[in-house]
Amino acid sequence: MTMMTAEQYEESLRRLNLVVYMFGKRIGNVVDDPIIRPSMNAVAKTYELAYRPEHEDIMTATSHITGNRINRFTHIHQSIEDLVKKSKMGRLLGRETGCCFQRCVGMDALNALSIVTFDIDAKHGTKYYKRFVKYLEYVQENDFTVDGAMTDPKGDRSLPPHKQPDPDQFMHVVEERKDGIIVRGAKAHQTGAVNSHEIIIMPTLAMRQEDKDYAISFALPSDAEGITYIMGRQSCDTRKLEGGTMDQGNLLFGGHEALVVFDNVFVPWDRVFMFKEYEFSRQLVEQFAAYHRQSYACKVGVGDVIIGAAQTAAEYNGVEKASHIRDKIVEMNHLNETLYCGCIACASEGHKEPSGTYCVNILLANVHKHNVTRFPFEISRIAQDIAGGLMVTLPSEKDLQSPETAKWLKKYFEAHHDIPTENRMHILRLIENLTLGTAATNYLTESMHGAGSPQAQRIMISRRINMQEKQRAAKKLCGIEE
Amino acid sequence: MTMMTAEQYEESLRRLNLVVYMFGKRIGNVVDDPIIRPSMNAVAKTYELAYRPEHEDIMTATSHITGNRINRFTHIHQSIEDLVKKSKMGRLLGRETGCCFQRCVGMDALNALSIVTFDIDAKHGTKYYKRFVKYLEYVQENDFTVDGAMTDPKGDRSLPPHKQPDPDQFMHVVEERKDGIIVRGAKAHQTGAVNSHEIIIMPTLAMRQEDKDYAISFALPSDAEGITYIMGRQSCDTRKLEGGTMDQGNLLFGGHEALVVFDNVFVPWDRVFMFKEYEFSRQLVEQFAAYHRQSYACKVGVGDVIIGAAQTAAEYNGVEKASHIRDKIVEMNHLNETLYCGCIACASEGHKEPSGTYCVNILLANVHKHNVTRFPFEISRIAQDIAGGLMVTLPSEKDLQSPETAKWLKKYFEAHHDIPTENRMHILRLIENLTLGTAATNYLTESMHGAGSPQAQRIMISRRINMQEKQRAAKKLCGIEE
Amino acid sequence: MTMMTAEQYEESLRRLNLVVYMFGKRIGNVVDDPIIRPSMNAVAKTYELAYRPEHEDIMTATSHITGNRINRFTHIHQSIEDLVKKSKMGRLLGRETGCCFQRCVGMDALNALSIVTFDIDAKHGTKYYKRFVKYLEYVQENDFTVDGAMTDPKGDRSLPPHKQPDPDQFMHVVEERKDGIIVRGAKAHQTGAVNSHEIIIMPTLAMRQEDKDYAISFALPSDAEGITYIMGRQSCDTRKLEGGTMDQGNLLFGGHEALVVFDNVFVPWDRVFMFKEYEFSRQLVEQFAAYHRQSYACKVGVGDVIIGAAQTAAEYNGVEKASHIRDKIVEMNHLNETLYCGCIACASEGHKEPSGTYCVNILLANVHKHNVTRFPFEISRIAQDIAGGLMVTLPSEKDLQSPETAKWLKKYFEAHHDIPTENRMHILRLIENLTLGTAATNYLTESMHGAGSPQAQRIMISRRINMQEKQRAAKKLCGIEE
Amino acid sequence: MTMMTAEQYEESLRRLNLVVYMFGKRIGNVVDDPIIRPSMNAVAKTYELAYRPEHEDIMTATSHITGNRINRFTHIHQSIEDLVKKSKMGRLLGRETGCCFQRCVGMDALNALSIVTFDIDAKHGTKYYKRFVKYLEYVQENDFTVDGAMTDPKGDRSLPPHKQPDPDQFMHVVEERKDGIIVRGAKAHQTGAVNSHEIIIMPTLAMRQEDKDYAISFALPSDAEGITYIMGRQSCDTRKLEGGTMDQGNLLFGGHEALVVFDNVFVPWDRVFMFKEYEFSRQLVEQFAAYHRQSYACKVGVGDVIIGAAQTAAEYNGVEKASHIRDKIVEMNHLNETLYCGCIACASEGHKEPSGTYCVNILLANVHKHNVTRFPFEISRIAQDIAGGLMVTLPSEKDLQSPETAKWLKKYFEAHHDIPTENRMHILRLIENLTLGTAATNYLTESMHGAGSPQAQRIMISRRINMQEKQRAAKKLCGIEE
Repeated sequence: MTMMTAEQYEESLRRLNLVVYMFGKRIGNVVDDPIIRPSMNAVAKTYELAYRPEHEDIMTATSHITGNRINRFTHIHQSIEDLVKKSKMGRLLGRETGCCFQRCVGMDALNALSIVTFDIDAKHGTKYYKRFVKYLEYVQENDFTVDGAMTDPKGDRSLPPHKQPDPDQFMHVVEERKDGIIVRGAKAHQTGAVNSHEIIIMPTLAMRQEDKDYAISFALPSDAEGITYIMGRQSCDTRKLEGGTMDQGNLLFGGHEALVVFDNVFVPWDRVFMFKEYEFSRQLVEQFAAYHRQSYACKVGVGDVIIGAAQTAAEYNGVEKASHIRDKIVEMNHLNETLYCGCIACASEGHKEPSGTYCVNILLANVHKHNVTRFPFEISRIAQDIAGGLMVTLPSEKDLQSPETAKWLKKYFEAHHDIPTENRMHILRLIENLTLGTAATNYLTESMHGAGSPQAQRIMISRRINMQEKQRAAKKLCGIEE
Repeated sequence: MTMMTAEQYEESLRRLNLVVYMFGKRIGNVVDDPIIRPSMNAVAKTYELAYRPEHEDIMTATSHITGNRINRFTHIHQSIEDLVKKSKMGRLLGRETGCCFQRCVGMDALNALSIVTFDIDAKHGTKYYKRFVKYLEYVQENDFTVDGAMTDPKGDRSLPPHKQPDPDQFMHVVEERKDGIIVRGAKAHQTGAVNSHEIIIMPTLAMRQEDKDYAISFALPSDAEGITYIMGRQSCDTRKLEGGTMDQGNLLFGGHEALVVFDNVFVPWDRVFMFKEYEFSRQLVEQFAAYHRQSYACKVGVGDVIIGAAQTAAEYNGVEKASHIRDKIVEMNHLNETLYCGCIACASEGHKEPSGTYCVNILLANVHKHNVTRFPFEISRIAQDIAGGLMVTLPSEKDLQSPETAKWLKKYFEAHHDIPTENRMHILRLIENLTLGTAATNYLTESMHGAGSPQAQRIMISRRINMQEKQRAAKKLCGIEE
Repeated sequence: MTMMTAEQYEESLRRLNLVVYMFGKRIGNVVDDPIIRPSMNAVAKTYELAYRPEHEDIMTATSHITGNRINRFTHIHQSIEDLVKKSKMGRLLGRETGCCFQRCVGMDALNALSIVTFDIDAKHGTKYYKRFVKYLEYVQENDFTVDGAMTDPKGDRSLPPHKQPDPDQFMHVVEERKDGIIVRGAKAHQTGAVNSHEIIIMPTLAMRQEDKDYAISFALPSDAEGITYIMGRQSCDTRKLEGGTMDQGNLLFGGHEALVVFDNVFVPWDRVFMFKEYEFSRQLVEQFAAYHRQSYACKVGVGDVIIGAAQTAAEYNGVEKASHIRDKIVEMNHLNETLYCGCIACASEGHKEPSGTYCVNILLANVHKHNVTRFPFEISRIAQDIAGGLMVTLPSEKDLQSPETAKWLKKYFEAHHDIPTENRMHILRLIENLTLGTAATNYLTESMHGAGSPQAQRIMISRRINMQEKQRAAKKLCGIEE
Repeated sequence: MTMMTAEQYEESLRRLNLVVYMFGKRIGNVVDDPIIRPSMNAVAKTYELAYRPEHEDIMTATSHITGNRINRFTHIHQSIEDLVKKSKMGRLLGRETGCCFQRCVGMDALNALSIVTFDIDAKHGTKYYKRFVKYLEYVQENDFTVDGAMTDPKGDRSLPPHKQPDPDQFMHVVEERKDGIIVRGAKAHQTGAVNSHEIIIMPTLAMRQEDKDYAISFALPSDAEGITYIMGRQSCDTRKLEGGTMDQGNLLFGGHEALVVFDNVFVPWDRVFMFKEYEFSRQLVEQFAAYHRQSYACKVGVGDVIIGAAQTAAEYNGVEKASHIRDKIVEMNHLNETLYCGCIACASEGHKEPSGTYCVNILLANVHKHNVTRFPFEISRIAQDIAGGLMVTLPSEKDLQSPETAKWLKKYFEAHHDIPTENRMHILRLIENLTLGTAATNYLTESMHGAGSPQAQRIMISRRINMQEKQRAAKKLCGIEE
């Protein structure tokens, strides 16, 4: 059996021995921590849906190594169809969780490495690809969640890695041994880190020869000795500690991000996939980035949730037929489906790499992600317009339970007598969650910076455009001969 | 002495006996409650700055009743210059507090009533204006903070007040007595309610004859018997309970909003300013709305803060000279100054009403507010772009204090060795506060809905435009004679 | 031989006997008329490129009727791949002509009819499909250009067809005969009408039973007796009469549109494809509209031209390395490629209809077209920014030829001494053509209204969205059970 | 009598002996040339309205030199009120002409010189100001139209004036004589040049010491020996030659721009206002630019015309009550009035310069103009949306006169039987004129580049913002002490 159930996944996490800090304290039981657990629930959804017949086609695939049925998140794309299904899987899970489900980053790292290890071997006669495939099989057979770790702290942005006053600002080799290497550094913004079994490290930018000690890629068990996780905090995170069923907005799911510190961690050779082949670091970065920019398909699914919530709020407010409300709902959908076009197009225009892996169209993947840095903000703005000011002036859930105040809330927040006031409050709390709360950190800020900030996409768009062809056409039409 | 100091203001609040609920419990000491206190601090700033010589010209005025020096927030605009200074006062206080300072709404209610009571008298031979001026003098002499309360719960949006199944969905008279009236109802979204000495009630929309019991306006002490305040909660509100000096972002100031319930409250006749003159309810609504839309000048000041914070974050990240960063800073400023043009223009194009009060240009005030429903969202989006993803993945302040994690945070979040890591964290927390946290509820959601939702402005723009003149010009130019 | 060459196409047009009016006069020789000819050149390009080996895969297809190699413009889509190639063909031709090449509308009409005739037969037991296929084979074997005509004048917009004071405001049957029918009416905005061999008429909107005389579809030779063409004029149209090689901007290609009047025209039965089956008129309209909204792939190609021209202008002005110029070029590309994503995605998400024809995803086709009503305007705005004011203050080509003025133009309009001043003028005239001139009518106004105005797409988006699914997801996440 | 009538203005132009070329030929009678005359009509409107009692307050002023009533276009702003009236005059004339009326540029040059000549004298002890005032009196007494000429051809953009291979790319002194100077160079994009009596030359950018020969300002009669005008052509310019009353859209008014060549022109000393005081060239440029950016108030008036035309087209199409149409009209107005706020605010926030001249707020003037580079494009896009596709597919006016086609046009372009089809055509031609035709070159392209391209405003916004103040506020709020 190569696919875990959601329950098995949860149990498997309990067996890990992670060093996790939050609010200045070590977290003993990560799985049951009320702030972290919703993020675990979201990852668990990737296991649960794989067992649902109606989602099987999207959520699972056949391993090209073993021929076994595997969770698509551990799959190497074997066709255009696989790439398209990946986008659809992202939208599906975004819609079902209303947040970041964290597991795409590992899938993207695996796929990027399946291409680049092959290409390094072709040039250098190394054996990375074989080593990688063996590791991949291990991941597939165990149905692991993998964290793909790219972003280094970077220290002084004006200096390359080898010139940093503190050499650890970029992940690097500090010792080379017979059985493996010792590495040191940190990876920031690691989504889903403490819900992962494995972590794959990749360089954060194109390296030059002087930086070759930084041009490394490798995999580690998430609880390898020397790894420390420090949890980031999110807007409204502590509402999850309040014990209610309303004010956190999304009652089940969330995301998390962590700073992961590697303090002299040992990596055996069979888990090293790039070692100082600095000239391939750019390719690995761009390949991973392209896959991961496609992964922002998930925001279309979160967009579905926010649109559904806005429509519901309009109905509860009794204004769903007003022409300006209908027009705003159309606009939200139009923007959301424009994003969908992007993640479908970059997949359907994909191509086969020498290793056999299918890769998205890199230009269009960047165009897609670039729109993700814009449209969710406008969708969020419109959702706030439709929700009404009550979204931010609503008293707490506890006021609904107190006899002295409950009567007033029920009386004065009722807009339709066939809609319980509680429901109106529930839906407004969900919109608050998506536009200002824990989910906003994913739907907005992460949409901006995840898989690269806007400027990163603009640089790639600039590089990937065939400007000569456009200029040739223009000159010909107006009669310029050069 | 007609102007209180900030300290006197705080003391005066302690003497009130307000019935306030929050998180289901009655709050005994409102002034010192850690969640409410920052909002009190923001109002206190309106008293403090009035005593600063460099701001005296903007913050104070000469009463046209008594000739005394008064806080501008209790002043009736006597000239175009007064209107312009009001806009500048809003920007100043927005910049100094980084949030909603709550006191403008009372000023706007007073000014609107100074016009409408005069006009009612002119038609009906009533004595409202005199009564109002006496009340105004009381407010000015005591330098009170006044809550201007307009928004009713509204119940079923498809029905007028008198057809609501629950008649209390709009504030109304339930008994008429010799010495005054008894009123019942509620006002939602009341900004700064529990920091106010007085509360002025106005109708929420244009009333018809059948709704004349709802066409009422009056003033009450904020602690009148029968008034209950239920505090709304804001994104990240409970961070203020954590006792730190970083994670709440804005360390001193905030805003608050409350549902205010009036359960059979007595109003003596000398505090009643409109009583069933339903045909003036539209004027009062539009006049108040116009003044209050001008008041969104404050968001330009909050915009100053977010721009200053983004620039600082860019400098701390070491990227302030990158051309795309500079360009984004220009864009933020351009949008912010466009807003400034709106609140200046509607003031400088103001006019004198029959009562002698100066009123803003209503068309331009609506245009201004309508831009406020848009640009702060884009400014916020750009701020998040410049801040970087760390804004939402930053560990808590407590991780910076714990010896096990502090070393890693200091090491890995340092970008410039001459900038303390703490400062970088401080500024990111401020941007988080403004874009996702407590201040975002004011800078974003309230910008959308305060003083009327976008559609309200569109309706007013549509009404106030001279379309005939435009059509005449167009037809003449192309040769159409009708 | 089933494919004409460009030369054969031109000759075939000479054999037509069209009744064409322009500037109030009958045009004897349509093909050589200097205003019309550039539009013929653009259609001819669809024939020419089909013979180019490098474009063969995109420009041609295998007929599913005869198995012959045919021009893709006469092809019925047999697969997703066909749909995607159609989008690519549109971009290719847009780039090579810089204007509207007019031939897509017939292709879209043929494909829509291939679906709807089949569906009518299935319900009514009629024989339309067989009749249609025979006609299709005739078009394919002769490689005809077909005009697809949908838009009726519509008269009073508030009345349905049968209530119009003038019954001819919608195309209708005026007589039913043994051998065929007599029709009367007009079709407006007919792109490429006088460059077509055939014209296919479709109803302009969903019809009800009372309007069944208007629920008709049929094909006619473009020179059938009773058809009159009145040419529309375009911005700068008469520059084509000036005889120069610069001021018209695009020296070879253009588009045209005409009002086509049908004054009691006879249609034999074997060319009638819908006859009063009013309940299918909506389907025919929506099917055609969806295909035709996909066809706005062409604007991506025109976008390529305008981007290429802007880049060239920047180089000629010596400013191509300025960061703001580079950023603007990226923005143009980003918007243009976002459009590309739309036309690719609606194709790759297509599906098979009962007739075997593949149809685009209707929701996404509408989303795509809706973006076409926006982005070309912004691309055009940026192009004008980059071009500089000289674009509209440039003296005429004749001033460059006159000895008295040529010296000054050459001296003062030279920005780089290795770039001939003429080239700088050429490229500015092309940008003028695309943003204000003849091509602007296609790139801008037609982008707005062609294949349906923006509101038409919004209505379709509203209909095609699965709102229930979105609301279900939202409610589940926040705990609403109904 | 210090103010000319429109008729006197026209006569005064006939007395000039200008050397004007267009389409490669010398124009003998400039005033009656059908392409140029509409631009003369627009300038004449500035004379005509000054005599209308209802516009007298806006259109005229009292000379601070002579105390005479003068046309405001020759006035030096003596108060904030004057600045505000200037903005209102711009809107008024934009609305009455629907195009560029050309006379503001001279007013802006005069006002800028009134400041800078005073400041030069203060530093250098020169006598420029007195000389300038004498010249100003001459202009006021004669009610002259003055062209303010700033933009040089600039040659190689990467080189300063003195390094240009061709020294004439920037206007410069070629000889210094006892009685005056000889200058050579050219000024591009000169709006209204051949409708002017005088031309004032200013340097085009900040000069350094090495470029001091280029740091010159002076005035010339427009027909001084050695000056040649080469007319630029506009989109659809030749429609004015067709002799109709419909297709040119705006039947009376237009604008024009010209390249003005100065081939060794003599300037007497009493008309020289800056001579090699290079350190003041930046101030003159910025001062003039600020005034001239305010002058884009005129586009608000042209916006009034396009809104009036769109509303009329909607009524003629019978769709003016559709909610989406009403919403679009509101949006056009909102954008147009936002522009109005800009030109009012920069005026009302003006200040007094040492010379006594009032100057606009430079930051806000730049903000205003920057919005002018954006909103007219969106207004134009919406106007095209409302107008419908017929705007670009309408046959020519001659088709309406030909008996063979007139019947069809009248029949099929009638939407309301009480609206003559001609009127519908007239209004569509006006919208075409404003969005694609002669007026589009002013409303769009000139809005982009006139008074400086967008990037010029961004640089000024960047310079004029008080960033320190914003950063101080932000740091204080989040607890950063440095």
